Amino acid sequence: MARGPTLDLVPGVLAGETRAIARLLTRAESGDDEGQPALEAIFRHAGRAHVVGITGVPGSGKSTLVAKIALQMRRTNRRVGVVAIDPSSPFSGGAILGDRIRMGEICGDPGVFVRSMATRGALGGLARGTLDAVDILDAAGYELVIIETVGVGQDEVDVARAAHTTVVVSTPGLGDDIQAIKAGILEIADIHVVAKSDRPDADRTIADLKAMLAIGPLSRRSGLSGEWQPPVLPTSGVSGEGILALCEAIDAHRAALDASGAIASRRTEINERRLLLAGEEILRGAFVRQRCGHVAGLLAELDARTIGPHTAARRLLLQLQTETNA
Amino acid sequence: MARGPTLDLVPGVLAGETRAIARLLTRAESGDDEGQPALEAIFRHAGRAHVVGITGVPGSGKSTLVAKIALQMRRTNRRVGVVAIDPSSPFSGGAILGDRIRMGEICGDPGVFVRSMATRGALGGLARGTLDAVDILDAAGYELVIIETVGVGQDEVDVARAAHTTVVVSTPGLGDDIQAIKAGILEIADIHVVAKSDRPDADRTIADLKAMLAIGPLSRRSGLSGEWQPPVLPTSGVSGEGILALCEAIDAHRAALDASGAIASRRTEINERRLLLAGEEILRGAFVRQRCGHVAGLLAELDARTIGPHTAARRLLLQLQTETNA
Repeated sequence: MARGPTLDLVPGVLAGETRAIARLLTRAESGDDEGQPALEAIFRHAGRAHVVGITGVPGSGKSTLVAKIALQMRRTNRRVGVVAIDPSSPFSGGAILGDRIRMGEICGDPGVFVRSMATRGALGGLARGTLDAVDILDAAGYELVIIETVGVGQDEVDVARAAHTTVVVSTPGLGDDIQAIKAGILEIADIHVVAKSDRPDADRTIADLKAMLAIGPLSRRSGLSGEWQPPVLPTSGVSGEGILALCEAIDAHRAALDASGAIASRRTEINERRLLLAGEEILRGAFVRQRCGHVAGLLAELDARTIGPHTAARRLLLQLQTETNA
Repeated sequence: MARGPTLDLVPGVLAGETRAIARLLTRAESGDDEGQPALEAIFRHAGRAHVVGITGVPGSGKSTLVAKIALQMRRTNRRVGVVAIDPSSPFSGGAILGDRIRMGEICGDPGVFVRSMATRGALGGLARGTLDAVDILDAAGYELVIIETVGVGQDEVDVARAAHTTVVVSTPGLGDDIQAIKAGILEIADIHVVAKSDRPDADRTIADLKAMLAIGPLSRRSGLSGEWQPPVLPTSGVSGEGILALCEAIDAHRAALDASGAIASRRTEINERRLLLAGEEILRGAFVRQRCGHVAGLLAELDARTIGPHTAARRLLLQLQTETNA
């Protein structure tokens, strides 16, 4: 019944109208089925933006960095959309001690649209809503769309799976345990940033990263083996050092993807993941709808340990067929 | 064809034989279909262990804490199993700068079984293999099974979803950004630990946590509203301070779950999640099998943006029906 009003937002989004964009983003975030036809229409119009994922350990100054990148990219007259899903980000609802005004510099610029996603994926990783939000900003004409997420655990891999160019932000002096985590994210980074480069111990972090890159795999994700060596770039939110070089590296990476044709395979990878995520969402929807019916019976059997999860899931999927056919 | 050998491991696991346990854990970790019948059999025999999730920000000293807990619990003659999925853990493969020998004290004790899971969930959060590993240790007679994971992002929520008792480890002086993340995990903690309590700034972290708990929700996950106030316990891996109190709190939480009957609803919640994870795994399996067939066609349409992910996923599920029926 609410299909009309939601679909009505599509022309406004395509025309870049802020209010329509904001309203459809809210629908995307809520994840309800009613927004689906509009998001489907938006998807067909998206695909032009350069999607940049920015991830890094908590406290690495990602939000400041994103603001600086947006400012710099505006100088080349590009419109910049930001989807922030860092729970410690001043954009999103999670920060309780953080500085909510770091983004002040870019507020009020109509060429920059910042949206925080309060919700993470209910059952793991980036929410589907994040990817829909990227589509919306893309279809609305934002040439550069930045996804900002906190990078420990699964999210950093997920953001790389959603982006054309992935920037991994490190910071000096966070200790060996945190540095060790980076071992797992070396291969997802197309560009490494060492933020807070004004700190005295920044040089050591830069050297450590370069040493790890020398022994580790190159940027496997970009499909650019040999053609792209992930740079390690120092930046400072305080002095502004390195922001221009970072923006140039982002553009250079995109140019390399385009020149080699690797952009096509990266796009397919992203779509592959979206297809799977959408399938899982349909499955979860069926699960929720049948919680008092078929699912309740399966859970009773699991609680009694008379069947295992795999068998129960097979039965659930068979039930889903019946429902889909009905 | 390999069903026989894998199923053959089940009696050995149930008898607590280390070699059979280790071999079946490897099958669980690989996640292949051949291990499924054995894991299904194991599931039916599991359900007795007290499953404790331990999560916290990187660098919070979780691994040291887990070793100390295991040592302490051994004094009450309980067998302790540990499944470590922290990429910075000395157990698992991720640590490149970490101290791999922190667990030395418990090595060689046959009443403690430590298993690192090198793989995380390929598509988000804790791997299904982690839950299977808990079953295996449970069915093998380990009365206490600890899941250790790094706690930023989705994993901390996932570990709470898999455990009866969730311990969230904080540490002094990791900065406001990291502290802010805790806002999201207050409600998953049944017990808060402030590790490295010998540090001078530990008192402030303890006070901060208590202040947050005073305004925040109580332990929503435990189903024990009013009956269980999550304690904030200082511990020191160096001096051993607080380890006994922590073990007593873990036991007290379990006793409260049992006394109130909340343990039953928590078990059902865990099974609900396992059912859904198993369903998603079947979906992913179908996706991989059809990558060169039906899926390729859907991806071509997505790349051309002639259909959206939701429509494509519906078609994939219809295809899955056909396959399941065949």
